[in-house]
Amino acid sequence: MTTGNRMAEKTAGIRDVAAHAGVSQTTVSHVLNATPHTRVAEDTAARVRAAAEKLGYRPNRFARGLRTHASDMIGLVTEEIATTPHAGRIILGAQEEATRRGLTLAIINSELNPDPEVDSAQVQTFLDRQADGIIYATVYHDEIVAPENLRARPAVLIGARDSTGTIPAVMPDEQAGAVSVVEMLLARGHRRIAFAASEEDVPATRGRLLGYQHAMRAAGLPIDDLVAFGTADARGGYAATLQLLDHEPTAVFCYNDRMAMGAYRAAGERGLTIPRDLSVVGFDDQAPIPESLFPTLTTVTLPHYEMGAWAVSTLDALLNGKGEDALLAAHPTLLACPLLERESVAPPRVAGS
Amino acid sequence: MTTGNRMAEKTAGIRDVAAHAGVSQTTVSHVLNATPHTRVAEDTAARVRAAAEKLGYRPNRFARGLRTHASDMIGLVTEEIATTPHAGRIILGAQEEATRRGLTLAIINSELNPDPEVDSAQVQTFLDRQADGIIYATVYHDEIVAPENLRARPAVLIGARDSTGTIPAVMPDEQAGAVSVVEMLLARGHRRIAFAASEEDVPATRGRLLGYQHAMRAAGLPIDDLVAFGTADARGGYAATLQLLDHEPTAVFCYNDRMAMGAYRAAGERGLTIPRDLSVVGFDDQAPIPESLFPTLTTVTLPHYEMGAWAVSTLDALLNGKGEDALLAAHPTLLACPLLERESVAPPRVAGS
Repeated sequence: MTTGNRMAEKTAGIRDVAAHAGVSQTTVSHVLNATPHTRVAEDTAARVRAAAEKLGYRPNRFARGLRTHASDMIGLVTEEIATTPHAGRIILGAQEEATRRGLTLAIINSELNPDPEVDSAQVQTFLDRQADGIIYATVYHDEIVAPENLRARPAVLIGARDSTGTIPAVMPDEQAGAVSVVEMLLARGHRRIAFAASEEDVPATRGRLLGYQHAMRAAGLPIDDLVAFGTADARGGYAATLQLLDHEPTAVFCYNDRMAMGAYRAAGERGLTIPRDLSVVGFDDQAPIPESLFPTLTTVTLPHYEMGAWAVSTLDALLNGKGEDALLAAHPTLLACPLLERESVAPPRVAGS
Repeated sequence: MTTGNRMAEKTAGIRDVAAHAGVSQTTVSHVLNATPHTRVAEDTAARVRAAAEKLGYRPNRFARGLRTHASDMIGLVTEEIATTPHAGRIILGAQEEATRRGLTLAIINSELNPDPEVDSAQVQTFLDRQADGIIYATVYHDEIVAPENLRARPAVLIGARDSTGTIPAVMPDEQAGAVSVVEMLLARGHRRIAFAASEEDVPATRGRLLGYQHAMRAAGLPIDDLVAFGTADARGGYAATLQLLDHEPTAVFCYNDRMAMGAYRAAGERGLTIPRDLSVVGFDDQAPIPESLFPTLTTVTLPHYEMGAWAVSTLDALLNGKGEDALLAAHPTLLACPLLERESVAPPRVAGS
C-alpha cells in the first residue's frame, strides 16, 4: 500500500524501498518503525534507511504530517460496551484525552470474542472512514493475533498484547493489585487468608491468582486448603465461600466484586458478621456493588479510564512521529490497580495460625 | 445563518424567507419543519411556503442533499458514560444502528448536568468537526433548554424533550413500566403493595411514583402509609423499607434495583425470607444487581439500546429529508419498559386487607 495514490506522481511505497535495499518489506517495517523485540543487522538497517531516504519514503506510522486529509478522527473498537461500566470508563478516558488533543473519538462495539484472532471487520470500517489511527480494546486474552489491516495505520491495544509484540499495548497490573490486597490483610494481622478464585479463562483470572499465591508464599503462609474456584459471579462466590468457610479463614479475598456479593450471602447464612467475624475483599470496584453492600466493600480499582487516556496519548504520539519512545518502552505497559479501602476489613478476632 | 456561505452567490436564508413572507423566522421554521404542537394560520403557512419556493430556500434540517461534504459522521453527546451501564446501552444501540446505515458514531461525554440549559460546548465540538447531525442524551430533566447551536444541524434528544418542542425526542415510558409492576403484583394476589420512592429530582422519580399511584387507585387500594422516600441507592432502600415494614406490606416495589438491594437487607434483618414472606420488585435491570441477589430480582428493563437505535434512525431520516413523519409523530416518543420476572415475587402468605 502506498501513500499518495491520489497524486499524479506516485510516491514510493514500502515495496519500492524493500526492492531497492534488497530486503523484505517486513525488514523495512522493522527498521523504519524501530519495532521492539526485532533484530536487524546494522548494515542492513543502514541500507534500508538510505533507500527510504533516496526514494522519499516514510512509513505510514509517521506519515501523518504528509497526509493532506488527516481526519483527526481516531477509532476505538471495544468489546462489551453494554455489559459492564468498565468499557464506559475506557471510552470516557479515551474521549476526554482525545478532546484535549483536538481529536474526535469514533467507536464501534465488537462482540465478546473468545477467539484470539481479532476480527478485521470493525478495523476495516474505521480504515474505510479514514480514521487516523485505531485503538482495539479486548478482554478475553493476554495475547491476540492482530488482523493484518490493524497494521495499516498506527494502532494501540488495550487489555492485550499482540502476538508479534509490535503494537503498543496497555494492561492492568492485576498481579500487583492482588499482591497489595494480601499485604494489606497481612498488615491487619490476618494469616488464614482464603482466595475465592474464578473459573473464567481470562487474563485477570491468572494475574489475580498469581498475585495471591506469590504474596502468601512470600509471607511463608500455606494456601493448600484456602483456594476454591467458582463461576465469576455472585453464585460462584457464594459456593466457593461456603467451601472455604469449612477451613476457617479469617479473610476471604474474592476474584471480583460479584463473587464478593456471594461471599456476603454465605457469611450471613453461617451467622458471620462482616468484618467482625470475617473480612471480605473484592476486585474491580464495579459500580454499584461496593457502595451497595452492607458493610461497603473494600476492593481494588481497575485503571480503565487511565488505559483509555494512555491509548489515545500513545496513538497521538505515533501519529505525530513521536512514537519511538512509546514503541521502545516496556511492552506491554502495565498500569496500577489501586486498593480502595471501605468497611469490609477488620483485624481477625482470633489470631490466625 | 445561511447555507452555502462558501459559494460565490449567496443562497437564501431563513431570514430572507421571513422578510419576504412578512413573518418571524420562528414562524418560517415551524411551517417548513412541520413542527408539532405549533399552529400557524393556513394562509400564513401558504405565504411562507411560496416565499421559500421562490427564494429556493430549504431549512438546514432537510439540506443534507445540498451539502457537498457530508461527513457521514454523527455525534452523540451523553451524560454519565462512566457511571452506569445505561449509557453503554444507549451507545451500543446508536452505534449498531449507525453501522447498519453506513454512518460513523463519534461520542463526547458531558458532565451530569443539573441545569436544564444544555451546555453548547460539546455540541459545538461536533459542529466544528462537520458532524452531519447530533444526538444529545441526558438524564436529569423531562425538559431541557437546547442551546441555539443544537439547531444548526438535525438533532435528536434522548431522555428529555426540548422546551420548544421542535427537536424529536425519545424517552422511556417510566409510568407505564411502574403500572405494569403493580398490575403484576395485583394479579398474584397482593393488595398491600408498598413503594420505596426516590428523593432524587429526575424524571424517572416522578414517572414511577405516578405509575404506582395510578395503578393502586385504579384498583381502589389505599396507599396512605405505603409510600416511603429514600436516597436512590441501597442505603435509601434499606431505610425506606424498614419504615414500610412497620405497615405490613406483602410486597415492596422499589424505585430502582439499588434500593431493592437495601430492601433485601432490611427484610433479612427482620427475619423475612424473599419471596415467601415479602415480594420485592426493582426497576432498571441494572447489571449486575438483579442476577447477583439471592433470590434473583424481578425488575423492569429500560429501553436504552432501543432509544439509541431510535435516535440514529430518526436522525438519519431527517438527514435524508424524510423526517416529516418523525417530527409529526407523537412528541416525545415513549418506548416501553418491559417487566422482567425473576425469583423475588410470590403470592402473599396471608391475603392482604
